[in-house]
Amino acid sequence: MKTLVVIAHPNSDESGLQSFFKESSASLSQVTIYDIQKELPNFDLSKTQELLRQHDRIIFQFPMYWYAAPDILYKWLEKVLTKSLYQSELKGKELGIVINTGQKLSAFQAGGSEHFSISELLKPFQAIAYKCQMTYLTPFTVSLFSYLKEDEKKALLVNYQQYLTKENSDRFTIKEAWFIERLRELRKNNLISDSNQRLVFIEESIENNRLELEHLLMTLEEMRSE
Amino acid sequence: MKTLVVIAHPNSDESGLQSFFKESSASLSQVTIYDIQKELPNFDLSKTQELLRQHDRIIFQFPMYWYAAPDILYKWLEKVLTKSLYQSELKGKELGIVINTGQKLSAFQAGGSEHFSISELLKPFQAIAYKCQMTYLTPFTVSLFSYLKEDEKKALLVNYQQYLTKENSDRFTIKEAWFIERLRELRKNNLISDSNQRLVFIEESIENNRLELEHLLMTLEEMRSE
Repeated sequence: MKTLVVIAHPNSDESGLQSFFKESSASLSQVTIYDIQKELPNFDLSKTQELLRQHDRIIFQFPMYWYAAPDILYKWLEKVLTKSLYQSELKGKELGIVINTGQKLSAFQAGGSEHFSISELLKPFQAIAYKCQMTYLTPFTVSLFSYLKEDEKKALLVNYQQYLTKENSDRFTIKEAWFIERLRELRKNNLISDSNQRLVFIEESIENNRLELEHLLMTLEEMRSE
Repeated sequence: MKTLVVIAHPNSDESGLQSFFKESSASLSQVTIYDIQKELPNFDLSKTQELLRQHDRIIFQFPMYWYAAPDILYKWLEKVLTKSLYQSELKGKELGIVINTGQKLSAFQAGGSEHFSISELLKPFQAIAYKCQMTYLTPFTVSLFSYLKEDEKKALLVNYQQYLTKENSDRFTIKEAWFIERLRELRKNNLISDSNQRLVFIEESIENNRLELEHLLMTLEEMRSE
């Protein structure tokens, strides 16, 4: 599965979170980054549309400005989503939204200071997914990034990588398979050494757990059929 | 009450509907038109903010592009809505949305081809109204304008004029008062002649109906108190 991250930020290089996201995805071989602000001056419609065709999961990644995306995303959409794209060429792909806000998440609900949930405010993007016959993924929301502690940032990194590359399923086996794949990829690219015993141990543990779980499921299946 | 209509259209002069709207509001003395596309090249922040302060009802008027407004509205909002405005200076004013779509209205509901209602898709604007402590008016939606018949266009004209200038109330007396005020204004500006017997008759009828209704209400009040 190939993922295209479309960043809509007026200056992503100066954003702490956007830099964090870029570093988090740098080791993911199946991920392409497309920064609208940088591409617009030399915008090429056919190349951009080809990029969308070549990827299976499209992510719009932006800070929430006035309960919507920055203007450049709308400008880009007005150019890019021509009839052939929204009528057929995006069909079956996935659309994800990575959004960040400077408000705490609990403010986004009835009675909260922001009144509406993130899901409600993002309905226009959900409607775009439907129009293009894409599968809409649950939004990935980051709140108050600059206040996150180190361990929270590590968790965010893994969750973000999963949002970009993990099969769209909450099943545990899918999560396990994703972790094993990630470890193998990191080793293949020499980003972690073969001699890192702790990581080898983690990989073996996950693998063993999975085999044990499969064995249990088979036993359960046998007991049911008897 | 003074109303500011903020048009967000890439080229309002070439839009049949925007031209219709401009003509419809031309005779309304309390209405100011502000066309973002025309103002942006020489954008003046303090003048624009002063304009917002001077009006009681702010209308965002735009065609629906990808379930949202054209990009220029977001660009404008990012410039204009500075802290002093959204924290205090817009408080108590009204925010209305005039939106048009090329889809039929029945498509905007669960199970319809657009899946969500106009109200749902406009939640980001409702959230802006709440943030600025403004009263959010029910959106004014125009669907398939170019297919409207002459009498439908006449009704649209009156409804649009009311959306811009009528007190925010469904009470019948408010509607009556609005019609009488409009007829007087038109005559004052010599847009209709005093000798137009039909209009004089309409005005007198409305006035008489109103007096009769008031009389009935008083009688009813007396009967209750006895």
